[in-house]
Amino acid sequence: MSFGIDDLPVRDELRGKSPYGAPQLDVPVRLNTNENPYPLPEPLVERIAERVREAARDLNRYPDRDAVELRTQLAKYLTDTSGYRVGTENVWAANGSNEVIQQLLQTFGGPGRTAIGFEPSYSMHGLIARGTGTGWISGPRNEDFTIDLAAAERAVAEHRPDVVFVTTPNNPTGTAVPAGTVLALYEAAQRAKPSMVVVDEAYVEFSHGDSLLPLLEGRPNLVVSRTMSKAFGAAGLRLGYLAAHPAVVDAVQLVRLPYHLSAVTQATALAALEHTGTLLKYVEQLKSERDRLMGELLATGYEVTASDANFVQFGRFEDAHAVWRQILDRGVLVRDNGVPGWLRVTAGTPEENDAFLDAVRELKKEQSA
Amino acid sequence: MSFGIDDLPVRDELRGKSPYGAPQLDVPVRLNTNENPYPLPEPLVERIAERVREAARDLNRYPDRDAVELRTQLAKYLTDTSGYRVGTENVWAANGSNEVIQQLLQTFGGPGRTAIGFEPSYSMHGLIARGTGTGWISGPRNEDFTIDLAAAERAVAEHRPDVVFVTTPNNPTGTAVPAGTVLALYEAAQRAKPSMVVVDEAYVEFSHGDSLLPLLEGRPNLVVSRTMSKAFGAAGLRLGYLAAHPAVVDAVQLVRLPYHLSAVTQATALAALEHTGTLLKYVEQLKSERDRLMGELLATGYEVTASDANFVQFGRFEDAHAVWRQILDRGVLVRDNGVPGWLRVTAGTPEENDAFLDAVRELKKEQSA
Repeated sequence: MSFGIDDLPVRDELRGKSPYGAPQLDVPVRLNTNENPYPLPEPLVERIAERVREAARDLNRYPDRDAVELRTQLAKYLTDTSGYRVGTENVWAANGSNEVIQQLLQTFGGPGRTAIGFEPSYSMHGLIARGTGTGWISGPRNEDFTIDLAAAERAVAEHRPDVVFVTTPNNPTGTAVPAGTVLALYEAAQRAKPSMVVVDEAYVEFSHGDSLLPLLEGRPNLVVSRTMSKAFGAAGLRLGYLAAHPAVVDAVQLVRLPYHLSAVTQATALAALEHTGTLLKYVEQLKSERDRLMGELLATGYEVTASDANFVQFGRFEDAHAVWRQILDRGVLVRDNGVPGWLRVTAGTPEENDAFLDAVRELKKEQSA
Repeated sequence: MSFGIDDLPVRDELRGKSPYGAPQLDVPVRLNTNENPYPLPEPLVERIAERVREAARDLNRYPDRDAVELRTQLAKYLTDTSGYRVGTENVWAANGSNEVIQQLLQTFGGPGRTAIGFEPSYSMHGLIARGTGTGWISGPRNEDFTIDLAAAERAVAEHRPDVVFVTTPNNPTGTAVPAGTVLALYEAAQRAKPSMVVVDEAYVEFSHGDSLLPLLEGRPNLVVSRTMSKAFGAAGLRLGYLAAHPAVVDAVQLVRLPYHLSAVTQATALAALEHTGTLLKYVEQLKSERDRLMGELLATGYEVTASDANFVQFGRFEDAHAVWRQILDRGVLVRDNGVPGWLRVTAGTPEENDAFLDAVRELKKEQSA
């Protein structure tokens, strides 16, 4: 037997675990990780090369530790798209929204504290909780994947968590959470004890409704997290950010690694933000493709969960993993998130979506044959 | 009174703390953060722009989660410069060596566990320990800043730490640690209980001696950490890495945030690795400037600590912070690391070092006047 992880003095709770991550398989049509299928437009690619060239001339120096220019432009984007005024002092950025969440849990969670999420939801919330020593509480949802407010309030009152996660639109179900539900959960959380509520809006640009940014007004324990991975078509950039009261931005700086955000990341993100208008047009295309996927899946006899994101949860299957494999055999990679009876497909290009729809129609025919 | 950090439900141990980081002051000569003073050569700047342009065309996709090409080239660099064979499977990379250390402490430290360092040393070791809930033990050094092996072995036997940090050359003192000392500490640590020894070689390229990479042979609980910030002149890139047994590389993947290393970071680092030969020539220049600084400081009547890094610790001062301020008043920013009696100056360009030497000579004259 060769020397492996369990022969090292790793923490007990890591023994027997495997790393998180969707299988990276070489398949013609990859609709499994909610990536934006549209490559960045060539003028933006050129602008990135230009800004990175400029940054590279100063690469021997540490980057702006506080990323002021980037936070200013992110604040402007949030203000422009939500109508709610967000300033530089309200914004913090990190290497992907995962790092934002990690910093929040290091600040407000950690050993002896707990966080709650309403599952199924973005599984990294629970995994980052584990990684930061924060106790994890799995809160309930309704059968249709909406949040059961009464049950959620009871869970908050009972467990008195330090951090409450609300993902809207929710991943992997696509479900939007109404502002009233978030407000009620915020109140319930504060009644239990002073605690932070983190609204994860990674997919909000694809939503029918508005961002919950205006709820930040007068609520210093509320945080809205965002990412450039989806709407900005920049999953490879790893740029996540948050908007909150300036005190929250000050607080996460107590745990952030100094100079965590490289000069090339800052330069690339700034270039992408110059092209917001073009990138948001792709979002409109993806929203209509998402709606088409929902309609066609229903017409083919599948169930779908109403989606406000760039993906659709569909089912129901007795053995979802077997169906995942059958779709893969037809050259299309979707995601089995472990939600019993359901799979998730990302809205790709019209051609990719057609390939997916052909595959699932074929499966339906075989079943009825 | 305005709403601040302490009005938020932050963790108790963060109350009253301030963020880590040297003052970022606008001063003509900045010799305070051990940056490489030489900008990247223009052909490398162009190559970075080229590789990032290529990466940007695929930026809508997540980056290679395992950074295989980058780890392969880092392994090749380590093999070429140390003569000790390091493979892709031995190397892991992250956003700065700080993130490498954070991942190591999340894996092998954390709540209920402890880490030891021999201080004064790189203060982020202790700060990241705090950030990951790892107990921190401050181990001793001799008066001349070498490690007191007998005292260090006693500290390890007494505290039985889970992680032992050895920084060589040490920051902020510049002190190299002999291989025999590291070996003895490794043995002492294993006798106490199975534990990890992390050799932080951030400055090793500036050393008179060899890297301790060959000690990895047959020692699966040993880790060597490195950075591209110093010798590669790429502090703005934030690229740290480690070499260790493949099981260690597997283990940190249990805690790493998925896709932690962006496609632009990977592309930029790969470009820099193509220009290793040129960059290492700057290292030779900096070594001779470092030696000149030591000689001139001694000749001027200061004490210095023998340095194997790209900086020099000098003193001794009754009030080091007052001297720091007097040097700053002369347009030169050095570092007060809080070591009583001592300051630290980074080896800059010959002109920058001259400006620093002029300033400290002037101070010495004023004192004797």
